[in-house]
Amino acid sequence: MLVQKYRDMLSGKSVIRQLSEFAAARGKEIGYENVFDYSLGNPSVPVPREFTDTMIQMLATKESNELHGYSPNPGIPSVREKVAASLEKRFGLPYRKEHIFMASGAAGALAHAFRLVTEPGDEILTFAPFFPEYHPYVDLTGAVLKVVPPDTASFQINFEKFEEMLTDKVMAVLINTPNNPSGVVYSRETLERLADILRKKQIQYGHDIFLISDEPYREIVFAGVESPCVSYFYDNTIMCYSFSKSLSLPGERIGYVAVNPRCPYAEEMVAMCVQISRGTGHNCPPSIIQLAVAEVLDKTSDLSVYETNMNLIYNELKALGFTCVKPGGTFYIFPKALEEDAKVFCQKALKYDLVLVPGDTFGAPGYFRMAYCIDTDKVRRSLTALRRFVAEEYGVQA
Amino acid sequence: MLVQKYRDMLSGKSVIRQLSEFAAARGKEIGYENVFDYSLGNPSVPVPREFTDTMIQMLATKESNELHGYSPNPGIPSVREKVAASLEKRFGLPYRKEHIFMASGAAGALAHAFRLVTEPGDEILTFAPFFPEYHPYVDLTGAVLKVVPPDTASFQINFEKFEEMLTDKVMAVLINTPNNPSGVVYSRETLERLADILRKKQIQYGHDIFLISDEPYREIVFAGVESPCVSYFYDNTIMCYSFSKSLSLPGERIGYVAVNPRCPYAEEMVAMCVQISRGTGHNCPPSIIQLAVAEVLDKTSDLSVYETNMNLIYNELKALGFTCVKPGGTFYIFPKALEEDAKVFCQKALKYDLVLVPGDTFGAPGYFRMAYCIDTDKVRRSLTALRRFVAEEYGVQA
Repeated sequence: MLVQKYRDMLSGKSVIRQLSEFAAARGKEIGYENVFDYSLGNPSVPVPREFTDTMIQMLATKESNELHGYSPNPGIPSVREKVAASLEKRFGLPYRKEHIFMASGAAGALAHAFRLVTEPGDEILTFAPFFPEYHPYVDLTGAVLKVVPPDTASFQINFEKFEEMLTDKVMAVLINTPNNPSGVVYSRETLERLADILRKKQIQYGHDIFLISDEPYREIVFAGVESPCVSYFYDNTIMCYSFSKSLSLPGERIGYVAVNPRCPYAEEMVAMCVQISRGTGHNCPPSIIQLAVAEVLDKTSDLSVYETNMNLIYNELKALGFTCVKPGGTFYIFPKALEEDAKVFCQKALKYDLVLVPGDTFGAPGYFRMAYCIDTDKVRRSLTALRRFVAEEYGVQA
Repeated sequence: MLVQKYRDMLSGKSVIRQLSEFAAARGKEIGYENVFDYSLGNPSVPVPREFTDTMIQMLATKESNELHGYSPNPGIPSVREKVAASLEKRFGLPYRKEHIFMASGAAGALAHAFRLVTEPGDEILTFAPFFPEYHPYVDLTGAVLKVVPPDTASFQINFEKFEEMLTDKVMAVLINTPNNPSGVVYSRETLERLADILRKKQIQYGHDIFLISDEPYREIVFAGVESPCVSYFYDNTIMCYSFSKSLSLPGERIGYVAVNPRCPYAEEMVAMCVQISRGTGHNCPPSIIQLAVAEVLDKTSDLSVYETNMNLIYNELKALGFTCVKPGGTFYIFPKALEEDAKVFCQKALKYDLVLVPGDTFGAPGYFRMAYCIDTDKVRRSLTALRRFVAEEYGVQA
């Protein structure tokens, strides 16, 4: 008498996971340093020294009950205050601790955001290409995730399709900028137009439509690219943040929900997150990690390697004639495959020990993702394999 | 358009929380050391030195990606292996890592257990007196928690009422031994009888009935008391464990689900937990805490203070003529109030700066809970207040 819906999920295996397992197995044969594994979005740079120092110092000097005791449900008050102050300073919106709910990474933050504003059967729209875990995240709440097809010219928003799909049943729109998998940062124009449409539709339908903004890549933005603050454009914005990428600590499950201070229900929503967490069994992120992160809010790991890698890969792809939107941030790039079926393309790449992920998984068939959070040396060596791959399989020369 | 069910929960305020806030406010007036605050079940003893040493050593010596990287969804394999080995050694059941799912404390473990075996509308039975958070934990999954009235003579199980309530709709039975709030440990006889009934009813109804065993107090058992392993008695047992009390780190949110190796679906259930966690947004407990806890699995904090406190309080209560079952473990005791309405009784106690929690909250009106996870010195001083309270209010002398 096990619950069938979870049982049914056991047979489905993530394509990314399969490719990553292939890479690990192949690594055992030829040495992992020779597998050009672009499958997984795992940060490759160390945590900032200050984080480790803070942890050690707290462990060496603080009373253990102070360090490891229960956190109040919305998070440790001093931590929430520091997060709010940092957001206010950075984005100019009047964040206070009452707008902040500490969560277990972006996944935890999103789990609360979805439950805040959707009942089973309600729709959430997101935009392809999109992070495939959004499906189980949303589906298991009972809400319905619908995916707006991509604008493949820019990987900004396909507004024509969006307006068609933005029916009365849509209670939330979910965006992810800088974007996994495209690496694209939504422009000011995109966010303004999105907000205008949402405001009009709120009035037309007579109900709120919330913008859930998944921002784990916020700190990874490349030179010359503007990454506007989503909350600035639209009052009903729920920001979902994770420190996983900015501080390279995805395993510590730390992030937050920050409801826009201009949202009329902001404080109530944070209080509701506390109630939601009683059902999800989450309570709050680990106390010691909350305390340590609060000391390094304005620091990041050395993220420059991602831009170096991006430029190497982007330039090579362009030289080889690939169609590719230049990433503005993240550690992903999302070029068009050299044949219609990207699954076949990625399968052929494996012969060259190039592990690429077909775009079908991300709602954009015909494209593929490379997660370049790997050593720059390996990136360089992979370009030789890439050249050989496209020459031998597709007759393409730079 | 916020979700009403969570909004509705905002008005309800936990009695325990209110009393704890009273204690804190009163502490500001007269000094917290003079408030005999028995409201909260927060461990009062430090974490074992070995835990802190392990944390510092790992931080000082390990690669940060190794320490803070993503944990696989069911937990870090080496950690799951060590947990399984420790359980096998201790309880003689053939636990393997495939039976272990690392979870965010007991709350996280329970959130997964409930979702494994109940669909919305299914019933879960628990036994009064019970931990009041079981209500939101279960209710928010859509299942229905029903509470079997207490056997007030022993705070073991009221089997007559249990058999009446164990209908075809019951998919799981939830127990908590050693028990919050009674401090009672279920005896071998109780567990054998419970298991016999469940086995019979499984056959009669033609479906599994799971025993969800919430065991955060497993390590806090007093001299001469036998605390049998629940899983030993019944194959379909889902053990939910937390390190919050045994290692005094409730804020770090670390525990596990251990499905009985004799349960025919054990490995499938752990795989299902991974799927469930995609919906709850939990992923896994923090990597560094998983790694550190795995090094101190067979250690505990110095828990002896709880037994010292219990004996002081129990002896005083008996001398004053209270009706009280002697706790076998935990840091709770659950005596009968000196008037019918325990809420009134506890209200009067506040005049003496004694913060006691009425049993109504725990499904046992007429009783009250004392959480004696406080300094022994304060316990001693509180007994003077207790004597004064019962003498002045009820004319009772030792």
